[in-house]
Amino acid sequence: MSTPTIAAGTALSAELYDVIARRRDVRAEFTGEPVDDDVLLRVLGAAHRAPSVGMSQPWDFVVVRDAGLRRTFRDHVANERDTFAASLPPERRTTFDKIKVEGICESTMGVVVTHDQSRGGQHVLGRHAIADAGLYSTVLAIQNLWLAATAEGLGVGWVSFYREPFLGELLGIPEHVRPIAWLCLGTVSHLETVPDLERHGWRNRRPLADAIHDNVWSDRA
Amino acid sequence: MSTPTIAAGTALSAELYDVIARRRDVRAEFTGEPVDDDVLLRVLGAAHRAPSVGMSQPWDFVVVRDAGLRRTFRDHVANERDTFAASLPPERRTTFDKIKVEGICESTMGVVVTHDQSRGGQHVLGRHAIADAGLYSTVLAIQNLWLAATAEGLGVGWVSFYREPFLGELLGIPEHVRPIAWLCLGTVSHLETVPDLERHGWRNRRPLADAIHDNVWSDRA
Repeated sequence: MSTPTIAAGTALSAELYDVIARRRDVRAEFTGEPVDDDVLLRVLGAAHRAPSVGMSQPWDFVVVRDAGLRRTFRDHVANERDTFAASLPPERRTTFDKIKVEGICESTMGVVVTHDQSRGGQHVLGRHAIADAGLYSTVLAIQNLWLAATAEGLGVGWVSFYREPFLGELLGIPEHVRPIAWLCLGTVSHLETVPDLERHGWRNRRPLADAIHDNVWSDRA
Repeated sequence: MSTPTIAAGTALSAELYDVIARRRDVRAEFTGEPVDDDVLLRVLGAAHRAPSVGMSQPWDFVVVRDAGLRRTFRDHVANERDTFAASLPPERRTTFDKIKVEGICESTMGVVVTHDQSRGGQHVLGRHAIADAGLYSTVLAIQNLWLAATAEGLGVGWVSFYREPFLGELLGIPEHVRPIAWLCLGTVSHLETVPDLERHGWRNRRPLADAIHDNVWSDRA
């Protein structure tokens, strides 16, 4: 195979590849401007169109605009971020200090995507051999949401510095439902062209060729 | 909020929403025709552009064209499918019998997407509080792949009737790497407009409005 590039093969695919390439994990560029309900519904509708195992559609979307709830969550995340920073060796800590890790209060809203493993009843087609297949469905919905938001000119930042039970209790989510992601969603000044972690020297991208194997696993990767 | 519809708000987003709406989980429509290497690289390149926790990019793609490997996997899946069928009450079994569950040999190729939790080393930014965050990254890549394939006119079917250790051993995947999905990928006669499971009466779609909650969880859903 030749050197991979993301280029449009057909007129049909040009925009999709462009959106996939422009999507960023946004932390510092949120402006907090309002988002039209119609736009939000299109973005959540895109998520809701995701594939799901046995068509169980196990996701829900809690749209958090309340400033008090967001401040409480932000304080919890700041605490978890400090715990992570303290675990780092000194040279990594210096790099990490440069990276803003959350836009919880600066974004227009939070969208908490939850997973209900009981959705679909006892016999979920395709889940009998792989228990995680339900969870995968919810994550597929998140990527649809992320791409739709990017196409609409919005930014998304996935906050993962939190403890699930804390967030569940804060939003009154039933115990059998897991909060999988807090997504900061909203208007942005711009999208960076290079991911934050790469820009700040945290980590570099892996070449695509290293990730592709023919028929069986190859150890070159 | 008004009744949600997926309509393009801007010229920019029209194609993306169209691809999201046309994407299907393909089982019976594979034709087995060849796929150009350039097209395959664009599709895998789209997957490789997915977001990942701490930019760990924990995925790999094993492209399985070998007929013998695919037959062996197909036989394993057929066995797991029969196990699932036997667990169903009689009326569900009748519905299930109408649904083809795999196109492993009929598709152009299999793409096995794997997850390496050790990728990114000891300090993966964003994974200290949520161990599954790495796994989520790999699933986000799968949705990019699926949408890119749809835009290219190809079909994707996710096979989840298998045991991970069987597939890992078949393809020589190291023990610390998990095979997350076998995706049947290839040319198709057409994409169905209604999901197979809905068409065959297995399950209906949930209204989007039921999935949206304001600030805190509401039990109406």
